[in-house]
Amino acid sequence: MSASIDFYFDFSSSYSYIALPGISRLADSSAVEVNWKPIVLGFIFKTLNHAPPAADSVKGRYVFRDVERSAELAGLPFKWPQPFPFNSLTAARVFWYLAAADGDKAVEWARAVFHASFGEGRDCSDPDVLGELASALGQDPGELLEATAKDEVKGRLKEVTGEAMERGVFGAPTFFAGEEMFWGNDRLSQLEHHLGLK
Amino acid sequence: MSASIDFYFDFSSSYSYIALPGISRLADSSAVEVNWKPIVLGFIFKTLNHAPPAADSVKGRYVFRDVERSAELAGLPFKWPQPFPFNSLTAARVFWYLAAADGDKAVEWARAVFHASFGEGRDCSDPDVLGELASALGQDPGELLEATAKDEVKGRLKEVTGEAMERGVFGAPTFFAGEEMFWGNDRLSQLEHHLGLK
Repeated sequence: MSASIDFYFDFSSSYSYIALPGISRLADSSAVEVNWKPIVLGFIFKTLNHAPPAADSVKGRYVFRDVERSAELAGLPFKWPQPFPFNSLTAARVFWYLAAADGDKAVEWARAVFHASFGEGRDCSDPDVLGELASALGQDPGELLEATAKDEVKGRLKEVTGEAMERGVFGAPTFFAGEEMFWGNDRLSQLEHHLGLK
Repeated sequence: MSASIDFYFDFSSSYSYIALPGISRLADSSAVEVNWKPIVLGFIFKTLNHAPPAADSVKGRYVFRDVERSAELAGLPFKWPQPFPFNSLTAARVFWYLAAADGDKAVEWARAVFHASFGEGRDCSDPDVLGELASALGQDPGELLEATAKDEVKGRLKEVTGEAMERGVFGAPTFFAGEEMFWGNDRLSQLEHHLGLK
């Protein structure tokens, strides 16, 4: 393993979804270990008194268009989930529950959630939708959803969100190579350059 | 000429400076006509009640680092001008004065101002610095600086800034191919894709 990077994301972040092909390319072609770290961006926004641009603002309208264009260029199916943004707390807690036992299963979960939400426009704040995804992955929906009420699972998500904030994360996706931080899926090529990969 | 794009920028915008090599590549290798359009971004920020991140904020610190890293990757010399941001009104007015007679001379001026400010860290709100740049380009410093007080020159800058705002510009650099808008030097490759160039 030549290098490892931390990949902080929120399941409700469209640009995090768009980063997935780049993340796969990094992991597959360069043997870079990617540590997937879902967080609750809303908590960070609240703490920093920061808000994403409103959907009906001049900047918001542009960003929506940019997301759609960027998804297309990344070769990804794209459909805005309804509602958007959505509450990503349960999806993130399931991730951390799975990660405690099996990192690969957790990443599989993350990809399934992203595909259902931004690829198919489904509402991944809905426990029924999440349960369906769990079943499709051969997981027990009841077990996964019950786990999201456990203190250690809730605590793990809080802990990683706090860790991200301490390292300077203010948006998603954010990548770290050591303590060098890169914000945005459009900075993956700079990250690769930093790692000496291109 | 296969296509033309509009390039809205502010002389005080570091990311506009970083876009210059990409702009040159477009113009030189693809025969794309680039319409350089300096504006007063501060006026747009005020109207939209928008502000760039404060230099001492979490996001501001990241952005400063990102600018330096991006300049390096673009192969550009980089030094933060003092003060930063600086008042770019005079530099922009000189541009529009020159552009009325000779577009190439105006672009030459724009490149000189960007190089002096972000390449060498000089204060391009200072009439003495601007006068020096004018002389180096074989222009009459007195004539150029006096022109910035003329109503038609001031009016032209206001007009183009208003035009940018009407088209949805909220930051710089911003590019248009027809009415398709691209914000940020990191969207130049999407613009090229849109134009069928890559």
